Amino acid sequence: MIERGDGRKRIVIEGVTPEIDGGRFPVKRIVGDQVIVEADIFADGHEVLVSLLLYRKEDDPNWTITPMELLFNDRWRGSFVVTEPGQYRYTLTAWVDQFKTWRQDMLKKIKAKQDVCVDFMIGAQFIEEASQDATERDAVNMQKWAASLRSDQISLSAKKKLLLSKRLMATMNQYADQRFAVSYTRELIVVVDRKKARFSTWYEVFPRSCATDAGRHGTFGDCERWLPYISEMGFDVLYLPPIHPIGLTSRKGKNNATVAKQDDPGTPWAIGSSEGGHKAVHPQLGTLADFRRLISWANKYGIEVAIDLAFQCSPDHPYVREHPEWFRWRPDGTVQYAENPPKKYQDIYPIDFQTEHWPELWEELKSIVLFWIEQGVRIFRVDNPHTKPFEFWEWLIGKVKREYPDVLFLSEAFTRPKIMYRLAKVGFSQSYTYFTWRNTKWELNQYFIELTETKVREFFRPNLWPNTPDILSDYLRDSEKPAFMIRLVLAATLGANYGIYGPAFELSENRRKDTVSEEYLDSEKYEIKHWDIERTDSLKHLIARVNRIRRENLALQSDLSLHFHPVDNEQLICYSKRTENCSSVILVVVNLDYRYKQSGWLDLSLKELGLDTDHGYQVRDLLADTAYQWRGSRNYVELDPQKLPAHVFRVLPEADKEKRLP
Amino acid sequence: MIERGDGRKRIVIEGVTPEIDGGRFPVKRIVGDQVIVEADIFADGHEVLVSLLLYRKEDDPNWTITPMELLFNDRWRGSFVVTEPGQYRYTLTAWVDQFKTWRQDMLKKIKAKQDVCVDFMIGAQFIEEASQDATERDAVNMQKWAASLRSDQISLSAKKKLLLSKRLMATMNQYADQRFAVSYTRELIVVVDRKKARFSTWYEVFPRSCATDAGRHGTFGDCERWLPYISEMGFDVLYLPPIHPIGLTSRKGKNNATVAKQDDPGTPWAIGSSEGGHKAVHPQLGTLADFRRLISWANKYGIEVAIDLAFQCSPDHPYVREHPEWFRWRPDGTVQYAENPPKKYQDIYPIDFQTEHWPELWEELKSIVLFWIEQGVRIFRVDNPHTKPFEFWEWLIGKVKREYPDVLFLSEAFTRPKIMYRLAKVGFSQSYTYFTWRNTKWELNQYFIELTETKVREFFRPNLWPNTPDILSDYLRDSEKPAFMIRLVLAATLGANYGIYGPAFELSENRRKDTVSEEYLDSEKYEIKHWDIERTDSLKHLIARVNRIRRENLALQSDLSLHFHPVDNEQLICYSKRTENCSSVILVVVNLDYRYKQSGWLDLSLKELGLDTDHGYQVRDLLADTAYQWRGSRNYVELDPQKLPAHVFRVLPEADKEKRLP
Repeated sequence: MIERGDGRKRIVIEGVTPEIDGGRFPVKRIVGDQVIVEADIFADGHEVLVSLLLYRKEDDPNWTITPMELLFNDRWRGSFVVTEPGQYRYTLTAWVDQFKTWRQDMLKKIKAKQDVCVDFMIGAQFIEEASQDATERDAVNMQKWAASLRSDQISLSAKKKLLLSKRLMATMNQYADQRFAVSYTRELIVVVDRKKARFSTWYEVFPRSCATDAGRHGTFGDCERWLPYISEMGFDVLYLPPIHPIGLTSRKGKNNATVAKQDDPGTPWAIGSSEGGHKAVHPQLGTLADFRRLISWANKYGIEVAIDLAFQCSPDHPYVREHPEWFRWRPDGTVQYAENPPKKYQDIYPIDFQTEHWPELWEELKSIVLFWIEQGVRIFRVDNPHTKPFEFWEWLIGKVKREYPDVLFLSEAFTRPKIMYRLAKVGFSQSYTYFTWRNTKWELNQYFIELTETKVREFFRPNLWPNTPDILSDYLRDSEKPAFMIRLVLAATLGANYGIYGPAFELSENRRKDTVSEEYLDSEKYEIKHWDIERTDSLKHLIARVNRIRRENLALQSDLSLHFHPVDNEQLICYSKRTENCSSVILVVVNLDYRYKQSGWLDLSLKELGLDTDHGYQVRDLLADTAYQWRGSRNYVELDPQKLPAHVFRVLPEADKEKRLP
Repeated sequence: MIERGDGRKRIVIEGVTPEIDGGRFPVKRIVGDQVIVEADIFADGHEVLVSLLLYRKEDDPNWTITPMELLFNDRWRGSFVVTEPGQYRYTLTAWVDQFKTWRQDMLKKIKAKQDVCVDFMIGAQFIEEASQDATERDAVNMQKWAASLRSDQISLSAKKKLLLSKRLMATMNQYADQRFAVSYTRELIVVVDRKKARFSTWYEVFPRSCATDAGRHGTFGDCERWLPYISEMGFDVLYLPPIHPIGLTSRKGKNNATVAKQDDPGTPWAIGSSEGGHKAVHPQLGTLADFRRLISWANKYGIEVAIDLAFQCSPDHPYVREHPEWFRWRPDGTVQYAENPPKKYQDIYPIDFQTEHWPELWEELKSIVLFWIEQGVRIFRVDNPHTKPFEFWEWLIGKVKREYPDVLFLSEAFTRPKIMYRLAKVGFSQSYTYFTWRNTKWELNQYFIELTETKVREFFRPNLWPNTPDILSDYLRDSEKPAFMIRLVLAATLGANYGIYGPAFELSENRRKDTVSEEYLDSEKYEIKHWDIERTDSLKHLIARVNRIRRENLALQSDLSLHFHPVDNEQLICYSKRTENCSSVILVVVNLDYRYKQSGWLDLSLKELGLDTDHGYQVRDLLADTAYQWRGSRNYVELDPQKLPAHVFRVLPEADKEKRLP
């Protein structure tokens, strides 16, 4: 007894790309992308195969079908363009085409002048069989063709002409014998986001520090007055740490002091008080209406407001009283606070995802997201997602994006690599990275090759942050303004998505609380700050220029073409990005040493820059507004961190220049 | 509504190795192997995990469970030993261990001198809960321990001692809370073969050419008289081309002539005549009883007889008459013969696997295999498996090996790489390779890295042939004896499985039919030969020595440790193999140039040779029976193809030598 499918289905479809973990997770694309699908498709023997790519929008019941072409070595390729945000599905099908095989063999036999009388009759049989499924009109033609092939009144050359006719081939394609077609066992998914998922420029600011006068608690209204400043610097996402009421119990004081003073505002991440929880606004920031007004003002400046999703509670959060079953209780009748022994965080109660009542908990957390979506929020920065179950995120993001495919989630998971990647797989649109701690050429090179050249690129979109309110890195600590300039250019050109925590960044704030932790001295997390954004040493003009270069040069709006070029000086890093057709090519050279001038010889891969060896080319430094004529792959650079630690070149082939001459 | 599993199951198990195509195909091992299984296993948060590896013999209903250990970066490893031929299954399970997490945190808190009264009560709760599932005897102890942790009469140091006690840990492990354990979604399979699947030495001979007197058709009896010769050369598999009756219709003559002469014997691959088909023996070779006697004589010499499975028919095969439905018929009432347009093979009718009657066909073909198994055959060399469906082979080999797990199948698929690999995946025990055409250092290097260092090694066992009756390669054509010596040493040391087509090989037969094809002049496929195996220029003594080295050095009995070492001369190739514990280490250097002496400096990876930099070591050339004292990684070699074109060194660390002194 043979307990298998039809033994006549002989095709193998394997090695499909893109495909993540055997189709368990979707790949990510943005609107307008061409999704290129490849697969190894083959059968035993030497017959001719036909392979098709099928795709459809998730809720469209019908597949669109497009042919694949054989590249080499049994590798086939097809593609389709995704035009709307949401989910698309794709799969493959293929069959052994007996008619095409017969036709190919016939041409060889005729060329070898073999007797092909009987073979023409075989072809006639194929056509006759196919005609049985054809429309009446097609069937008449097909019967006629078959008769011609059978007839000994028709000359060989006439039969050969028929064999080569496009009409016969097109008709036979239409009625191809697909009885033994094999479909790929899986339907694969691509999640299509709007463009901002791939290209975004973030500015993080504490709204309570936005007051014009020192000492006063800032409001959403104050934030509105910052919009021109933020917009002039070229940011398009304004990210606000939690805007909810802050707990009083166990509130932390300045510099994370265990006991807060009377007027210490507490950390915004200790969410919830008698004034409300995750769906409430901190009264001193304003009202929900004020927040909505900030959103719409920001939109006028081309800026979206992103808020923080920090699923944790202060001891005063209404959930603690209303849903004690969502917390872990200790034998002494208290709630288990957050800890990382021996460290204790008594102002934070983690939510217990191991609760029996997890389904109600999940629904409630989802309702928080939907609440803010209703207020106009479309981007969420998610705090510590790696301390909540992956399954929860996959469910939550899936549910939300099904209804609102334009919503984006940024994962703030500074944790172990496999966990970071898993969060991206389960649905996060963008992710914080280790960039914050990658300083040397080797480190940057290794890390960005992993991010942009391995399958990680299919699901993980890096968002690079040189600093955050939690992290003043070793590189920036106690260092000079050039260090901030270097990290800015790296973040903004290595990452199509990047952000800074300001104004600490543009004001080169570099004082650490101690030598052990990465905490800022007098961290804004525990106190209201008053920043002098008009300081003459501010980096705001450089930031504005860098962000304008990003906007004006398509090459910098994706990470997928990133390519590193060798330089003979370990302090100089060189890389390029380009559009598919090389209409936009950017070459970046950065001096990683913020103290000394460094020089070296680049060894450029001209192919990656869309150049040939026969012509010279122009490199125009968009940072310094200077231009050089170069030729060939070896070129000299010299960068003084006290002036400008980087070149950001637009590369223009000579041919282009010539074209522009009259 | 949440349409998922239990949201409290938080573990991810992914990146499992070995695993082929998401578990679609088994991996291969031999009896006695330790199967090392690794996986990325992690959960959200920072709790302690427990991971287990489960395995069982296919027909054993019970899993054996073995713990896995955390390596680093969320990578876990476990292993088990396979002791019998057949199929084993393995899978994984893991859970977040709350008790272990609690215990780990407690040790940190105690170290930090924190108040842990309440925490001890939490621990007591864990123990009490676990005691509910425990045996009465264990439960009594557990209740006692819990009471101690709760008691304020017990000192902190006593409680800490209990915390650290192995008995508490062992008991809690036994009753670990596995409610939210996650099992890997797949059960993976390992096919375990007997050792010969990995290490075998083949000799192919046409039995009809074995007669002692020229002109006579050889018999199985004549083959018996060759056994001492074959055994002295050190072969342990005697492979016979098809031994069945040969068709008369369209029989090919000498040198593939379209018309045979009266006494031309035809090619053995044109199987079937009025005297029988695939279950019959060519009458001139002897009887079935004679064949069985050959098998048992061969066994006395430590040699197994392998036969050829060539599923195709001569026009005179009984199947053509009895099962016309298994062939493709042409409109003129003839059966479609084999062709590769414009080439025609009228003496061969391919079986039509597209027949509606494929289930009966498959069963009949299986019965052929079982028939020969009943005669004592345990190794089959399968002719052109790539022209029959993969599904058929997977079914056939699966069925046969389930009943006879010691049966081995060698795939003769000289075809495109993905097809070769697919055949190995669906079950072939060994496979012919492209070795036959890989001559330069770069070619050998690239190809053998693919075979031994990528996942190919998990399912594809190479069997290297410098020549076959179909292939006299460019390298061997018109060349001298040294070329044959070079290819012999390469095949026998790069491949734990290798074979030669003799006596053509040991007699350095090098005349090609023409310059286009790779056919031998006067190919043995179409005529009976009489070889002078006593010729003084025979390579039989060298072959005997090489095969003895293979038998006496475990390192050469597997390909998995193959490592290439650089040499500063493109004509010299250097590689090593070793056992896991380096008890056997072989270093090979081959001069690929059969004309001129070549010399160069090796750059050895001492680690791969199990050596350290502090001591010297001895290399003993097992081919030339000479020895050298070496030190460090750079060493000089010089090889003259007119003498011996290769070194096959056994590597002995100095320390070993010292140990052997009194």
